[in-house]
Amino acid sequence: MKQIELMKELHVSSDKKIVLLVLDGLGGLPGTEGKTELETASTPNMDRLCRGSIVGLSSPISQGITPGSGPGHLALFGYDPLEYQIGRGVLEALGIGLELSPNSLAARGNFCSLDPSSGVITDRRAGRISTETSAALVEKLSTIRIEGIKITVKPVKDYRFALILEGVGLSDGLTETDPQRTGMKPLPVKALTPAAKKSAQILNEWVKQALGLLKNERPANGCTLRGIAKDPGLPSFLDVYGLTACAIASYPMYKGIARLVGMEVVDAGDTVETEVQALRRSWEDYDFFFFHVKKTDSAGEDGDFEAKVKVIEQVDHIIPEILSLQPDVLVITGDHSTPSTLKSHSWHELPVLLSAKNIRVDPVSEFGEVACMRGGLGHIRHIDIMPLAMAHADKLIKYGA
Amino acid sequence: MKQIELMKELHVSSDKKIVLLVLDGLGGLPGTEGKTELETASTPNMDRLCRGSIVGLSSPISQGITPGSGPGHLALFGYDPLEYQIGRGVLEALGIGLELSPNSLAARGNFCSLDPSSGVITDRRAGRISTETSAALVEKLSTIRIEGIKITVKPVKDYRFALILEGVGLSDGLTETDPQRTGMKPLPVKALTPAAKKSAQILNEWVKQALGLLKNERPANGCTLRGIAKDPGLPSFLDVYGLTACAIASYPMYKGIARLVGMEVVDAGDTVETEVQALRRSWEDYDFFFFHVKKTDSAGEDGDFEAKVKVIEQVDHIIPEILSLQPDVLVITGDHSTPSTLKSHSWHELPVLLSAKNIRVDPVSEFGEVACMRGGLGHIRHIDIMPLAMAHADKLIKYGA
Repeated sequence: MKQIELMKELHVSSDKKIVLLVLDGLGGLPGTEGKTELETASTPNMDRLCRGSIVGLSSPISQGITPGSGPGHLALFGYDPLEYQIGRGVLEALGIGLELSPNSLAARGNFCSLDPSSGVITDRRAGRISTETSAALVEKLSTIRIEGIKITVKPVKDYRFALILEGVGLSDGLTETDPQRTGMKPLPVKALTPAAKKSAQILNEWVKQALGLLKNERPANGCTLRGIAKDPGLPSFLDVYGLTACAIASYPMYKGIARLVGMEVVDAGDTVETEVQALRRSWEDYDFFFFHVKKTDSAGEDGDFEAKVKVIEQVDHIIPEILSLQPDVLVITGDHSTPSTLKSHSWHELPVLLSAKNIRVDPVSEFGEVACMRGGLGHIRHIDIMPLAMAHADKLIKYGA
Repeated sequence: MKQIELMKELHVSSDKKIVLLVLDGLGGLPGTEGKTELETASTPNMDRLCRGSIVGLSSPISQGITPGSGPGHLALFGYDPLEYQIGRGVLEALGIGLELSPNSLAARGNFCSLDPSSGVITDRRAGRISTETSAALVEKLSTIRIEGIKITVKPVKDYRFALILEGVGLSDGLTETDPQRTGMKPLPVKALTPAAKKSAQILNEWVKQALGLLKNERPANGCTLRGIAKDPGLPSFLDVYGLTACAIASYPMYKGIARLVGMEVVDAGDTVETEVQALRRSWEDYDFFFFHVKKTDSAGEDGDFEAKVKVIEQVDHIIPEILSLQPDVLVITGDHSTPSTLKSHSWHELPVLLSAKNIRVDPVSEFGEVACMRGGLGHIRHIDIMPLAMAHADKLIKYGA
């Protein structure tokens, strides 16, 4: 039996509340002083919490695998990311705050350069045109009309844009138009299933009109579509866990992923202080709180060790306020590691802390990567976190007699 | 390849003997002095053993999941409990010492109260009538006759009874009659597969006769049937491991589960001392010994910390006698945790100790929950235990060339 099915079968309601505090990209690698960002940060509140809790290291997917934001969060939410997948088009749309309906089909678009005579791609990213240039081209593409279909096009960043088609009978199971190399023409969209034929026709019609509108532009006189996908229809937190769940996040992408699993997104501003206020305001209304802090990851991606240390310290500063709400279960971790030294997501396991009644407290007294190697949880996987949180919140009955 | 298949393929015989010592509900949580039951108990023999062995923490099923006795033991025996399941009716029958044949269909019965005019259930447990009252009603139900079927009805506890039908062509895949709430009539048994149609008819005929016999009783003028199931037909220890296996247990449930995997159950009395005598008597006749101690779990369920400590000390006391038989592999663990503070089974990992030649000895010198967090086995799952025991008994050949 798969874990999601097991959770559906075993969950019961209790009045206990769970907070999942996610510092995006929390895990790090040693900087010049030999300590990671988390180990360098002054975190008296997390360390105090650590002394009465159980900690360990958690692997987002499996050893050596670096997750994107989608899989990292699905795993944290208890959905095996190798089984449940969110299409790239959907993530791109969610990332700029677009909402999807069950009738939506989302694609990631790239502006590209075509040889005017032969039509083959000469630059897959159109010289990495700026977001402003992109926005003007998207304006043109917004004039495309196809009967029965609502079309939304929005600039994302640089040469990237998001395309959403909405209409009855749209289906995914479609090939991409990007041939993944120069010297070839963009490919037609092909249906991989009979149900997707209509969608392929519509997308090819859209591309034809788009190429007409772009033909006199330079350098972006073409475009390609990738990751054409629908909302994956994930089972909801309410179905799986019986939890009313609330997402407190400042970035569109994470609000969007939370919505995909049926969480309600509350207005949380864009600082950890406004987020903790949102937590307080929402406290009575939900069983589960996904509290997302973005800037640890942004600092890591920027390679800014000091900035990442500071964000961790800001989060440590709000811990007492979270604790004052008396959550029955508090988990602190991240979706993946983003070491400043690598300036990117990485595969490294990351610290996880579980604080609750009926914890088997371990001897670890500091919340950091090396300290957590000796933690009582040992080495777990992200998809273990939700069952552990549920168990400690008295929300799971016994399996079998 | 699944583990069971792997074991079937790789096992070879050797003259080495394995003892699996199961302290039911062994794992605990800290009591008032900050130590668990096992940590509090004086266990000089286990601690001495610990210094020459390898230990760790084991999760019966997966993180956060609390197992019943059935799944906990299946996992210890190396059968993935999410794949192999024992129906509740079967466990109920085994729990009172009834034996099942491949032609048996077992159900758990509940006496209930029905509204005499409408027939709807007014109390699903008939006011929790006593076992004695139940026994008298079971006596009446024992008069039911259906052609070609041998029927056994036995009281279990309070309002619960066990029903076993035996006959050719009986099949499971049947719905329950308990609507799970009051205000509804008991449901008919329905076949979920064509093969189960005959069984559904027979069970509905039994229920009809039962309701006739009970109609003038108060408060138990009805009954429902749940968990209607057959012996799951588990592959035997001999097939899977090539082991002749013996079960030394004092409680019917555990003898029954052992029989389901083809172990022979020897007469073992009802104390750890009589159990160890049984082990000695049977020593020459088997390769594998499942030695089950029930009272650690009973004390935990009663919330009696001190009693659980005492049972652990009693077990520690017989360790030298077990060692005097010179088992080649000795595993000490439990089927699940039953912390006295929770008065119930729990999801917490529990200590496991593996003593054998060719062990990679770890530095842990005390057999306890926190000490085992640093054990050389790390964090394993129960289904890892049998392959480890088999390997250390030189009973597994290399996989692949």
